[in-house]
Amino acid sequence: MAGIGYQPGGVAESVVVSGGYKDDIDYGARIIYTGQGGQLVAGSGRQQVDQSLERGNRALVNSQMEGNPVRVIRGWKGDKDFSPNTGYRYDGLYEVRQHWWERSKDGPLIIRFELLELEGLHFKGESQKVDLGDFFATAPSGNASPERKLFPSGSKIARDPNVTKWVKDLYKNKCQICGIILRTPTESYSEGAHIRGLGSPHLGSDVIPNMLCLCPNCHKLLDFGSIYIESDLVTVVNIVTNESSRLTLKTGHEIDGESVAYHRIHIAGVTKA
Amino acid sequence: MAGIGYQPGGVAESVVVSGGYKDDIDYGARIIYTGQGGQLVAGSGRQQVDQSLERGNRALVNSQMEGNPVRVIRGWKGDKDFSPNTGYRYDGLYEVRQHWWERSKDGPLIIRFELLELEGLHFKGESQKVDLGDFFATAPSGNASPERKLFPSGSKIARDPNVTKWVKDLYKNKCQICGIILRTPTESYSEGAHIRGLGSPHLGSDVIPNMLCLCPNCHKLLDFGSIYIESDLVTVVNIVTNESSRLTLKTGHEIDGESVAYHRIHIAGVTKA
Repeated sequence: MAGIGYQPGGVAESVVVSGGYKDDIDYGARIIYTGQGGQLVAGSGRQQVDQSLERGNRALVNSQMEGNPVRVIRGWKGDKDFSPNTGYRYDGLYEVRQHWWERSKDGPLIIRFELLELEGLHFKGESQKVDLGDFFATAPSGNASPERKLFPSGSKIARDPNVTKWVKDLYKNKCQICGIILRTPTESYSEGAHIRGLGSPHLGSDVIPNMLCLCPNCHKLLDFGSIYIESDLVTVVNIVTNESSRLTLKTGHEIDGESVAYHRIHIAGVTKA
Repeated sequence: MAGIGYQPGGVAESVVVSGGYKDDIDYGARIIYTGQGGQLVAGSGRQQVDQSLERGNRALVNSQMEGNPVRVIRGWKGDKDFSPNTGYRYDGLYEVRQHWWERSKDGPLIIRFELLELEGLHFKGESQKVDLGDFFATAPSGNASPERKLFPSGSKIARDPNVTKWVKDLYKNKCQICGIILRTPTESYSEGAHIRGLGSPHLGSDVIPNMLCLCPNCHKLLDFGSIYIESDLVTVVNIVTNESSRLTLKTGHEIDGESVAYHRIHIAGVTKA
């Protein structure tokens, strides 16, 4: 089985953890996973040249940036504490938390990924049933009242990654407010910003009409209430400079007037429409 | 005792929780604290006009944005479960997690702050000894090997807020890379960005020579390795566009060559100097 399954130009869908890279470390709920490439003789286990941000490695970085989970499959050659005795086993969804570059034990640079188990507090050594039907689907409905869940990395809101992905894809990561595109070594970066925040006390919905594709700067300004959207759902007002601009809106993306009004009152502290 | 103690134009130093606002909610380790103002007759308990981002309210927002903790003092008139029977008691440091606007029970808008206890996993109903000497000091030394601590809101790195504040103050929140200043209804916003990341696997130092004052956009580009700093410690290279620019550096802020080299190799994946 190949190490990283992915869609060319897209995100990674699965990784196989089976002891193919001696730099892998398996902690069960947390895996330090080595990228692919750099072995002149595939399967030799010897890193001879630097790995690069291509193919599966690029796809895993895309997964990290989009917040898209990957399926982890463990093989019998992997760490004895966490791997099946024979064959391959599906072990559920993991978040790609971060990646970095490191010297391999052989010398050349390798890319390493930190993968964190998304379901369950601790690895249970069992295959987990996960409905994958929702992932990689189009036009996600999202979740009108998302719950807080406990993840290994702490408590956080269970967001639907498809909602974010849909909005970011629609705008190709171009900020709907200032128009900037942040380019990275792989794909561009943007954030799915909830107009009415998800967490307490705002309890907004995790749905497309409550989400904008923003750069981190405009996301902060929105969350701090430095900017708000007027009731025409298109005029963006900066309450510090008193300047206004127009929100970029594409066909199919209708934002929710109630969320906009909530944000204007409760986050920007502005009561006029 | 006054509700919010603060330095004019600066951060809040302490809040008194003593039942003065009927909209306050005390959960012990978590307090929903109501801002000041809006009562035409002070102490009447009746909110008659909207509160505003002035005086203590502005100072608490500054504390939130700078990550500066506030001292919580509980008085005997407060919630019976968590307050002293008589007089006032110092209950330790709390983080100002967020603020928002809400209609008070009387109608006009109030500002509410979520305060989270920083020491101890749960409120223990006892006064806690905390060395306040380090806070509000100048030229902080920081921490060369910061530890992970458990906070009520989850596990995170124990950063020294003075290190961040010192760097952000030096540049007056102007991004050292792109020069933008993000203006908010209170003070400007910037982020203290570690060149060599604090968390695993990078284990960088929480000290001034490892920190830059950046806008969120440039912070992301730095953390993604889209940009790196050359060994001259001043040339910033964007590896996507191949453009270079100069880092703004002020007297007294010397950045660490080893951290810069670490970032270039392990985060940007660039081995040439």
